[in-house]
Amino acid sequence: MTEPYDAVSVIRTKRDHGRIPDAQIDWVIDAYTRGAVADEQMSALAMAILLNGMAPDELARWTEAMIATGERLDLSGVRLPTTDKHSTGGVGDKITLPLAPLVASLGAAVPQLSGRGLGHTGGTLDKLEAIPGWRANLTNSEFLDQLNSVGAVVCAAGDGLAPADRKLYALRDVTGTVEAIPLIASSIMSKKIAEGSSALVLDVKVGSGAFMKNLADARELAETMVALGTAAGTHTVALLTDMDTPLGRTAGNALEVRESLEVLAGGGPADVVELTVALASEMLAGVGITDVDPAAALADGRAMDTWRRMIAAQGGDPDADLPVAREKHLVAAPATGVLTRLDAYAVGVAAWRLGAGRARKEDAVSAGAGVVLLAKPGEQVTEGQPLFELHADDAGRFDRAIEALDGAVDIGAAGAHTATPLVLGRVTAQR
Amino acid sequence: MTEPYDAVSVIRTKRDHGRIPDAQIDWVIDAYTRGAVADEQMSALAMAILLNGMAPDELARWTEAMIATGERLDLSGVRLPTTDKHSTGGVGDKITLPLAPLVASLGAAVPQLSGRGLGHTGGTLDKLEAIPGWRANLTNSEFLDQLNSVGAVVCAAGDGLAPADRKLYALRDVTGTVEAIPLIASSIMSKKIAEGSSALVLDVKVGSGAFMKNLADARELAETMVALGTAAGTHTVALLTDMDTPLGRTAGNALEVRESLEVLAGGGPADVVELTVALASEMLAGVGITDVDPAAALADGRAMDTWRRMIAAQGGDPDADLPVAREKHLVAAPATGVLTRLDAYAVGVAAWRLGAGRARKEDAVSAGAGVVLLAKPGEQVTEGQPLFELHADDAGRFDRAIEALDGAVDIGAAGAHTATPLVLGRVTAQR
Repeated sequence: MTEPYDAVSVIRTKRDHGRIPDAQIDWVIDAYTRGAVADEQMSALAMAILLNGMAPDELARWTEAMIATGERLDLSGVRLPTTDKHSTGGVGDKITLPLAPLVASLGAAVPQLSGRGLGHTGGTLDKLEAIPGWRANLTNSEFLDQLNSVGAVVCAAGDGLAPADRKLYALRDVTGTVEAIPLIASSIMSKKIAEGSSALVLDVKVGSGAFMKNLADARELAETMVALGTAAGTHTVALLTDMDTPLGRTAGNALEVRESLEVLAGGGPADVVELTVALASEMLAGVGITDVDPAAALADGRAMDTWRRMIAAQGGDPDADLPVAREKHLVAAPATGVLTRLDAYAVGVAAWRLGAGRARKEDAVSAGAGVVLLAKPGEQVTEGQPLFELHADDAGRFDRAIEALDGAVDIGAAGAHTATPLVLGRVTAQR
Repeated sequence: MTEPYDAVSVIRTKRDHGRIPDAQIDWVIDAYTRGAVADEQMSALAMAILLNGMAPDELARWTEAMIATGERLDLSGVRLPTTDKHSTGGVGDKITLPLAPLVASLGAAVPQLSGRGLGHTGGTLDKLEAIPGWRANLTNSEFLDQLNSVGAVVCAAGDGLAPADRKLYALRDVTGTVEAIPLIASSIMSKKIAEGSSALVLDVKVGSGAFMKNLADARELAETMVALGTAAGTHTVALLTDMDTPLGRTAGNALEVRESLEVLAGGGPADVVELTVALASEMLAGVGITDVDPAAALADGRAMDTWRRMIAAQGGDPDADLPVAREKHLVAAPATGVLTRLDAYAVGVAAWRLGAGRARKEDAVSAGAGVVLLAKPGEQVTEGQPLFELHADDAGRFDRAIEALDGAVDIGAAGAHTATPLVLGRVTAQR
């Protein structure tokens, strides 16, 4: 087969700060997916995009071309309006667990396709798989049936959505081209747009435990993604939220399910509740539902009812005991005073090293492993009191987890702590 | 085997405008050559180098690392001082043919390893192969023996010099990363330094028929290469020379051998003689020989004597008839007046399309094909008089060659032509 364009011309255009013509964007993405553009050509193009950027309409076309390499879910048979959430990943970020049933309990359908964790951030599927019997893989018809019967589905994304992204992401990972905002934005949005929900809320994390370390970069990513969603006809809003401190008091799979159940029972840590309610309000508002009270639906058990049906629909036993790690170890506070900083990245690495996360896609994770935070910023601690409770199946893992936590906290004098807001900003479509 | 570094870190350093540490430069070049760094990683690095540049000492280390992947010729057994020339490639550039024997006839040895042509520029080996019996491939000992017995060798570079460059060049060719001055400079200089001559003269071409289209880029390339040669202990000088107009009156393999014989016989086109003499003076001065007269050695037959011995030593018959193309076609002047422009690129493409050049490395070339220029800039022409004589083995090639020559000349009123110098500048080592 003769190709209508050649990869070197496309690369040169971007290398020389040009705008790649639409037809060439469509071609290069399609040709890369089917192997007619080589990895070494796409990596050179990715580096040129990283260094020279992309125009907004150019990136929108790039994202559409990625979507066009796979299927688009057809949610027209879902009777409720569909709304979804995506988080860019953080430590202790179990929000999807209470959020999806909460939103479904208030009249919208949540078709959430999730991923597994890699590195220091956890994955929603890994957390749910701590529940005995629960399975992540559904067929398309099971997925649609559950959306209509329960209103919420959290399951594994199939191979059919934006296959270009899977191939491109693996390439970027080994070529130093992950950190390109246009490529990050199109990677996330190609899959989210292909999922076909009417509305989408992005939780863009900022801070030590997040991919974006500062607010300016996070805002740029959020604006880029909101523009892509809007261009594709999906109602899209982003919240910029703090990830300098872990969310809640647990990082680990079963540990986070337990904490989510507390939230669904009307309790749980204030920050997890706050973010769950904020994201639920945005998800519902995105499909025109504004006369509801998410906090009330957590307090009165409506969200918990939907959770139980959601878990059961995927084979899980909502009443089963959750796995517990075989070994525990306490780490003591090094001084007396007010906890002024608790580093999300350090906690994430510790949980990962305890077995909660994976270094390579093929690795298994431990359901019970993780870190319980016995104090959070703003709380008074006394030298020697337990600060972290480490959970692992193998006591040999504690040393390296303790190492990761070295320097993870600051303890200051009374009044030294300044509370920072959890929601740092909100990004909506520009016009 | 465990690798001491990882490619992603090296790529990130350059991507983020850093200087790659020496040990990592050595590693990445070596690891790429043996396959431990993948093509898609090296192409991302090449794009980052193209867009972000390299510090002079960083590039010198990069070049040394390329040399270290292969052998370095040991010329210590050559009794005469050794001096070499490299041209960045042009149209009608047959200078090596008279130059190598001329310099050898004046007391220096010329160990010239050459390449074949690709695209619109010809290759020295292709030209010499037009001579019946002449062979380009010599063993190392044949090469050294001929340097001592004749003083001049023009032969094919073996696979042993800078193998990293061969692999990297092929990669750059398909990834839009050819046009990076640091990579061009290190590609050329790694091979030239590995050849081991004491002195080196670079003929950096500027203009439509050259790789460098403007003087500023050509000067930057020349300065970069002179710095690399000097850093490696090779006495290196560069001349910047015009390539808006083809050199001499022929472009094509046997045609250029014939023109070179005219120069070696004391005649030939003035521009070819001028550049041959200028480069010979530089090559000789580079090894301390300054009390000689190259023009006289062309006029009195000394250079021709060395030429005959040089050709015969490699199996060629200096008295054999040269191949002649089967078909000829004349292209007429479109107007009457003074020829003010004769585009080198157009002539190069025409010669290529007539069969003198190749589109892919595997292609064969025609010895007889090419273009004879019946007028050069500054000369008076009359509408309808022949301007180009096209030579090809197959008359079917004429149409596309004529197409290439469309717009290749400007013809103006008397006095409209301004002669430009052939040698546009000279670059020596900075200190």
